[in-house]
Amino acid sequence: MQASFLELIEAQWTRGKHVCVGLDVDVARLPAHLDGSPAERCVAFARDIVDATAEVAAAYKPNAAFFEALGADGPAALRDVIRHIHRATEDAPVIVDAKRADIANSNNGSVHYVFDYLAADAVTLHPYLGHEAVRPFLERADKGIFVLCRTSNPGAGELQDLNVAGSPLFLHVATLVKSDWNYNLNCGLVVGATYPAELATIRTRIPDLPLLIPGVGAQGGDLEATVRAAFAAGELRALVNASRAVLYASGGRDFASAARAAADDLHTSITRVVANLG
Amino acid sequence: MQASFLELIEAQWTRGKHVCVGLDVDVARLPAHLDGSPAERCVAFARDIVDATAEVAAAYKPNAAFFEALGADGPAALRDVIRHIHRATEDAPVIVDAKRADIANSNNGSVHYVFDYLAADAVTLHPYLGHEAVRPFLERADKGIFVLCRTSNPGAGELQDLNVAGSPLFLHVATLVKSDWNYNLNCGLVVGATYPAELATIRTRIPDLPLLIPGVGAQGGDLEATVRAAFAAGELRALVNASRAVLYASGGRDFASAARAAADDLHTSITRVVANLG
Repeated sequence: MQASFLELIEAQWTRGKHVCVGLDVDVARLPAHLDGSPAERCVAFARDIVDATAEVAAAYKPNAAFFEALGADGPAALRDVIRHIHRATEDAPVIVDAKRADIANSNNGSVHYVFDYLAADAVTLHPYLGHEAVRPFLERADKGIFVLCRTSNPGAGELQDLNVAGSPLFLHVATLVKSDWNYNLNCGLVVGATYPAELATIRTRIPDLPLLIPGVGAQGGDLEATVRAAFAAGELRALVNASRAVLYASGGRDFASAARAAADDLHTSITRVVANLG
Repeated sequence: MQASFLELIEAQWTRGKHVCVGLDVDVARLPAHLDGSPAERCVAFARDIVDATAEVAAAYKPNAAFFEALGADGPAALRDVIRHIHRATEDAPVIVDAKRADIANSNNGSVHYVFDYLAADAVTLHPYLGHEAVRPFLERADKGIFVLCRTSNPGAGELQDLNVAGSPLFLHVATLVKSDWNYNLNCGLVVGATYPAELATIRTRIPDLPLLIPGVGAQGGDLEATVRAAFAAGELRALVNASRAVLYASGGRDFASAARAAADDLHTSITRVVANLG
């Protein structure tokens, strides 16, 4: 029987791995020496990034929107990348950053696309429709469901900071995911590294749910503050995601080794902070 | 110069047209007599539905999730359907019900996919990340941006009814869309027919934004209550969407004429309520 997402990611954490490589494969930013159609170049680039980072990465997070940019070739290109991750790494799960959520059966197409066609291990979802709406996702007990809680963008607070009975909305989302969405023990939260204080508040309230933390690197999140905020009960149940800082560490022929170095640096920095906390 | 979404839809309203046909093309529910691959059957079915309803429909709303179910063939199938709508109808805009929203440049792929590759006229978005996040969508001034406000699902209230300073969250979303998202005058709101009281509250507060109202028909929304609630200032600036009730009015060889009859019925019912209000 195949390992569940939670088993896969907990095994990575046991190995001390917390780096998630975000595959925001932007066709406009690929190294100039790559040949082929846009889809071929994106897949070749992503495969080289995966090969270079396979030892250090805990997980990979391709963003579906970048593959939508490829039009008709998008689904097959994304599937090729995910197949390659599953072949090239022994046990790094794939989180498709699709940011989906529809009502009831309307989700079925996306569920099938992400988990069956793409064979991803986890997905990201919007919380706005509530957990009743996204049961077709939640019922895939072996898959990981990361719910957007506190996003990393500058304007995240427009809704997420609204005061609901004395607490910001994002904290209600965190609490609801823990109490109502997680009935199959397959949920986690997306919390941006650009908001370490909010991250600490969430972690204090919800010490156990897996966290997916984008926003270090190009978005400017403070790594040490992030790891300190995410750490709880003697462990770091979190993936720290870097996308552009790894993928575009170099725009030249050495892009893969530069990506490896950037991922290694992130891993080393996380390990150092955890050692001081553990 | 091509007409903007707002121009297209206001012209339809001037003609008294308010029916939006939701193309929730479910490969598992297609009439048995259709031949070909799943994608071919979905496209053939949708084309026949469009041809049958072209005179009465104000707009079409294909749901992207149903096309994701087709895997590699999804994008081209959805594009074929949209091309057919633009050819077969003189001026019915196409709203891709994609329910997207990512941060900043990560939206670009979806923006390109929906508006350039698919050549849709409008899209649906989640509100949770705030308007700063989805500027790449909002800046397409000629396109329509329908923000999920009060969704039609039974569990919609989990977040949407949370009390923010004395008002439910969905009303804050409505107000924010009006004040901050709509700087290009291209925004509308998605409000489910299954919640006519909430719809009336939104319409009272925001009398002018276009409304996209799913949930009549299979989901059980009360049409008369819906139209009364959506009507304001002497007009109905709203699209009333029916999907399953039109598409699957018959499962046999007469599916297209049955769809036409169902769409005609909905049009007649809306017209009757409006006549009593106007």
